[in-house]
Amino acid sequence: MFPGPLGLALAGRALASGTWSLDAVNIRDFATDRHRTVDDTPAGGGAGMVMRADIVAKAVDHVSDDRPRLLMSPRGRPLTQARVRELAEGPGAILLCGRFEGIDQRVIDSRALEEVSVGDYILSGGEAAAHIVLDAVVRLLPGVMGNVLSGDEESFENGLLEHPHYTRPAEFEGMPIPAVLTSGDHAKIAAWRRCKAEQLTAARRPDLYAAYTPPKTGKKTKPKPPQEG
Amino acid sequence: MFPGPLGLALAGRALASGTWSLDAVNIRDFATDRHRTVDDTPAGGGAGMVMRADIVAKAVDHVSDDRPRLLMSPRGRPLTQARVRELAEGPGAILLCGRFEGIDQRVIDSRALEEVSVGDYILSGGEAAAHIVLDAVVRLLPGVMGNVLSGDEESFENGLLEHPHYTRPAEFEGMPIPAVLTSGDHAKIAAWRRCKAEQLTAARRPDLYAAYTPPKTGKKTKPKPPQEG
Repeated sequence: MFPGPLGLALAGRALASGTWSLDAVNIRDFATDRHRTVDDTPAGGGAGMVMRADIVAKAVDHVSDDRPRLLMSPRGRPLTQARVRELAEGPGAILLCGRFEGIDQRVIDSRALEEVSVGDYILSGGEAAAHIVLDAVVRLLPGVMGNVLSGDEESFENGLLEHPHYTRPAEFEGMPIPAVLTSGDHAKIAAWRRCKAEQLTAARRPDLYAAYTPPKTGKKTKPKPPQEG
Repeated sequence: MFPGPLGLALAGRALASGTWSLDAVNIRDFATDRHRTVDDTPAGGGAGMVMRADIVAKAVDHVSDDRPRLLMSPRGRPLTQARVRELAEGPGAILLCGRFEGIDQRVIDSRALEEVSVGDYILSGGEAAAHIVLDAVVRLLPGVMGNVLSGDEESFENGLLEHPHYTRPAEFEGMPIPAVLTSGDHAKIAAWRRCKAEQLTAARRPDLYAAYTPPKTGKKTKPKPPQEG
């Protein structure tokens, strides 16, 4: 399952060139019976199976060093671009992918696992979430994206969703590119983009908009009443 | 890149057995020049490249029918388990994965693309986000998870993060399974789990906790002051 899609495109080229590396560890290798069992029924009853604390602890201990230990879990704190940036600047990470109903709480507590959620939905296991973390982190590593990164203009980097984009052709099905973008007036273009980004954020993500403070003037453009488009 | 990890494990078995299917369409096949160019520089300047409205529109039109058209984008509305459930009950979906800086706004508008975000972070492209959507939806399809689904007890299904899990061994590094879980008193176990779920949600996700209403009594257990553990 790993590197999977991370072995392709920019991340794959960076993996091949040694910009980053990945060791997949199979928790089943730390089981003690011949069926390589890693789970058991939940104490107190209920559906699904729970991964055993003793087996998971052995797998975690096997790879532990100074790297943060992340447990992919919908119960975790939501992953943010700020945490992604920290991970990209750090020594790497151990990503623990749960399967089944969950993982025994005692290994989460005793190994100080940082529960991380990629979003408010349920996956079949932690692997797709780990791919998200790796993709988001790897693209920030030096050399991976070349000069493609636009940094501050990207969604979340300045607390706003990104403004709309346009490119050639100049007219598409009767719709022209907004005139300001072809005006050559860079100050006007920047102001238009900021305004559009603020309007979009206010309409779609009132939570982000409430926390947003513009970096320079310190005051928000008063957005139009929340509406799309 | 597709099915990638979705070709493995439960989702892969369901794919092989025809429970679900996937057609990957390469947008480059709709380019009109011999370099198969799909992008151009952003109108108004800036870093990165923008996917052309005319090329993307041809690819979208090629596959469009009555299925919802989702554009994986950090600017989108956050994916929720409720939307996942709708998609699982629907006729399928068209998932459009952007690359580069973004997609020309005119194709988003004219093709009524539903912008969906899997979380507040930036990916190298929409593919990892599409894997998330597919994994979350496929596991809900009839027959995929067998009787593994615990339904109401899962995170988000009842508006709360999930309670902690425990399984054998009865003692792990001096830590016993909480006595209530081995008491056999099902009402007490349910109350303990509800209380733990509410405490965890209040501590980690005040946003979810504020929106939460218990299904039966209509009143919340007053949680202890937000703290971990």
